[in-house]
Amino acid sequence: MATPEDRYATGVATLQSITGSSGEAVVESLKDIAPDFADWIVAFAYGDVMSRPGLDKPVRQIATIAALTALGTATAQLKVHIHGGLNVGCTPQQITECILQMAVYAGFPAAINGLVAAREVFVERGLSAV
Amino acid sequence: MATPEDRYATGVATLQSITGSSGEAVVESLKDIAPDFADWIVAFAYGDVMSRPGLDKPVRQIATIAALTALGTATAQLKVHIHGGLNVGCTPQQITECILQMAVYAGFPAAINGLVAAREVFVERGLSAV
Amino acid sequence: MATPEDRYATGVATLQSITGSSGEAVVESLKDIAPDFADWIVAFAYGDVMSRPGLDKPVRQIATIAALTALGTATAQLKVHIHGGLNVGCTPQQITECILQMAVYAGFPAAINGLVAAREVFVERGLSAV
Amino acid sequence: MATPEDRYATGVATLQSITGSSGEAVVESLKDIAPDFADWIVAFAYGDVMSRPGLDKPVRQIATIAALTALGTATAQLKVHIHGGLNVGCTPQQITECILQMAVYAGFPAAINGLVAAREVFVERGLSAV
Amino acid sequence: MATPEDRYATGVATLQSITGSSGEAVVESLKDIAPDFADWIVAFAYGDVMSRPGLDKPVRQIATIAALTALGTATAQLKVHIHGGLNVGCTPQQITECILQMAVYAGFPAAINGLVAAREVFVERGLSAV
Amino acid sequence: MATPEDRYATGVATLQSITGSSGEAVVESLKDIAPDFADWIVAFAYGDVMSRPGLDKPVRQIATIAALTALGTATAQLKVHIHGGLNVGCTPQQITECILQMAVYAGFPAAINGLVAAREVFVERGLSAV
Repeated sequence: MATPEDRYATGVATLQSITGSSGEAVVESLKDIAPDFADWIVAFAYGDVMSRPGLDKPVRQIATIAALTALGTATAQLKVHIHGGLNVGCTPQQITECILQMAVYAGFPAAINGLVAAREVFVERGLSAV
Repeated sequence: MATPEDRYATGVATLQSITGSSGEAVVESLKDIAPDFADWIVAFAYGDVMSRPGLDKPVRQIATIAALTALGTATAQLKVHIHGGLNVGCTPQQITECILQMAVYAGFPAAINGLVAAREVFVERGLSAV
Repeated sequence: MATPEDRYATGVATLQSITGSSGEAVVESLKDIAPDFADWIVAFAYGDVMSRPGLDKPVRQIATIAALTALGTATAQLKVHIHGGLNVGCTPQQITECILQMAVYAGFPAAINGLVAAREVFVERGLSAV
Repeated sequence: MATPEDRYATGVATLQSITGSSGEAVVESLKDIAPDFADWIVAFAYGDVMSRPGLDKPVRQIATIAALTALGTATAQLKVHIHGGLNVGCTPQQITECILQMAVYAGFPAAINGLVAAREVFVERGLSAV
Repeated sequence: MATPEDRYATGVATLQSITGSSGEAVVESLKDIAPDFADWIVAFAYGDVMSRPGLDKPVRQIATIAALTALGTATAQLKVHIHGGLNVGCTPQQITECILQMAVYAGFPAAINGLVAAREVFVERGLSAV
Repeated sequence: MATPEDRYATGVATLQSITGSSGEAVVESLKDIAPDFADWIVAFAYGDVMSRPGLDKPVRQIATIAALTALGTATAQLKVHIHGGLNVGCTPQQITECILQMAVYAGFPAAINGLVAAREVFVERGLSAV
C-alpha cells in the first residue's frame, strides 16, 4: 500500500497536470472550512483514482465531462474539467463532441448547458470551437 | 444535408458495429409501441450522433458508460453500452476504470451499481475483469 | 379552509377516479409502516393537489407521466400513473407521445424505459399502443 | 420518410410557434460552437418530435414544464418553455398548476424553483399569475 | 385529525423555529403567484411533516441538508436549511460533517457545492467553520 | 497523516459496526472485478469518512438514508444503510421518520420507494415498524 506521503505527492502531481493552478486554488479555498476534505481531493480523488494508469488522461477527462454534463448539477466543476481536458491534450472539438453526444443520453437541455460551459472555457482561453 | 436513406443506413451500420444484434432487437421491440421512436434511435441517435467522426468509437462508449453510470437510472442501457464498448475495442479494464472513476464524480453507490452491471456483462461474455 | 374530513373525502374520490382500486391498495399497504404517510397521500397529494380544478385530469396525468419518465427513479409509480391516465381519459397514443417527447428533455434511455413501462400497462389492459 | 428540407422547415415553424424569436436566438447562438447540434434542435427536437400531431401543443408544453421542473437542472430551458406554453395558449394559471403539482412528484424545492422561474416569465410579460 | 387551524398554527411555529424570519419571507413571496402552495408549505411541509416528534429537530435538519446536498438542484433551499440547522442547535462542524459525508454517497462535486453553500451561510452569521 | 494500515483497520472496524457481515460481503464480492475499489470502500469511505468523530453514528446513518432515499438510484445500498442504522442504534421509527420527511424534499414516489425498502429490512429482522 502507498504511504500517505506518496498518495499525496501523486495526487498533487496529477491535480497540477489536469487543473493547473485552478485546482490547487479550489483545494486551498476549502482548507478553511474542511481541511480534511481538501486532503481527500488530493490524496483520494487525484492520488488514488485519477492517477491510475488504466485509462489515458484525455479519456479520463472525457469520462468526467460526459458525467458532469449528464448530471447537470455541477457547472463549476464541469468547467474545471473542460479546462482539464484541454490541459491534458483533448481538442476543443473532442470536448464538444462528447458534450453533444449527451443530448442522446441525458437530453438536449443537459447538452445545451454543457455547450454553454464549454464556450465560456474556450473563450477564456482564446480558442475557436469549430 | 444527408438524405433520410443515408441517415438510416449510416445509423444501422453504427448500431450494428456498437451493439451487434442486441441493439437491433431493442429497435425491433419498440416498433409495436412507437415505430417512429425506433426510427429516431437509428437515424438520429446512431445515424446523426454516434456515427460522427470527431471521437473514436471506444472513447464514445467510455463517455456513454460514464454518463449512464453517473445517472444511475438506466441499468439496461448501461449493459448495452458496456457490451458496445467491448464490441468496438475497449478492454474490460478500461471499462472498469471508467466506472470506478465515477465514485469521485457521482458517489460510491453509483460506481458499485456500475460495477455490478459490468460484471454481469463480463460473465456473459466469459471475460475476466482483472 | 377545508375541514380534515373534506380533504380526506375529496382525496379518496380523486384517488379512486385516477387509480381505481390499485391506489387504495398502495395506501392500505403503507398503513402498517407509516399510517400518517398513507393519510398524506390521500389528504395532501390527492385531496389538496390532484383534486384542484385548474388543470383537466388527463393533462395532470400527462404532467405526472412526463415528470416520472424524466426522473427515471420511480417505475412502479410511473405505471400507476399510466394506468391513471387511461382511467381518466388519456388514449394510449397520447401517453406514448408524452413519453417519447421525453427523449428530447431527458434522453433516450429515459424514454425507452418509459415506453417499456407503458407497454406493460397496455398489455395488462389488452390495449394496442399504435 | 420526410426529406431533410421538410424536417427543417417543419422544425423552424414549430420552433417559432412555441418559442417566438427566443428559440431562434438560442439556435443561432449555438452555431458558432456546434452548428450540427443547432440543426438537431430544429430538425430533430422541433421537426421530428415537437411537431407531431398526437398531443395538442399546450399539453406538450405542460409535459415539458413538468419534466424540467422535476429535473431541476435546466432553469434557462424551463423559462423558454414557460414562455412557450404562454405562446401556444396555456394560461399562467395552468402553468402554475403544473409546477405546483411537481411538489408531490419531485418535492417542494423543485416546485418552489419552478414557481420562481414562472414568476420571472410572468413579470417579463406583464402577466398576473393568480 | 388536526383541525386546519391547528395544522397551520403548528406549521407556523415550526417554520419560525427552523427558519426564523427567512422562511416566512419565502412563504410571503409565494403568495402572489401560488397562495395555496404557500399554505401547503406551512400546513403540510412544516405542520404535518417537520413538526413530528419522532426525530429531534437537529437530526431532521441534518437529513434535509444531506438530501439537498446529494440532489444538488436546490442551492437556495440548502442554504435555508443550513441556517435552519444552526437555528435549532446544530454546530457548524456537524453541518460540515454531514455535507462532506455526501462525497461518498453523491460524489465530490455535490459535496464541494454543499461546502460552498455552507461557507456562505457561516460567513453571513460570522461563524468559524473549523 | 494516518498510515495505510491504520486507515484500513479503522475502516474495517467501522464497516463491521455499521454493516455487520453484509458490508464485508459486498467488499469481498468486488475484489474479483475491482480490488482497488474494494480497498477504497474500506480505507476511504469507511476509514477516512464514516469513522470521523464529528457526528454520532446514528446521525450519520440518518444522513445516508436521507440522501439515498432522495436520490432514488441505489436501492441495494439504501437497504444496507437501513440495516446499518438499526445496527448502530437507530430505531425503526426514526428511520421511517427520516424517509417520510423525504416526501417534502424529493417527492412522494421517492419516499414510497424508501418505505418499501425499509419494510423489507424490518421484515427480514422481524421488527415492527410502527
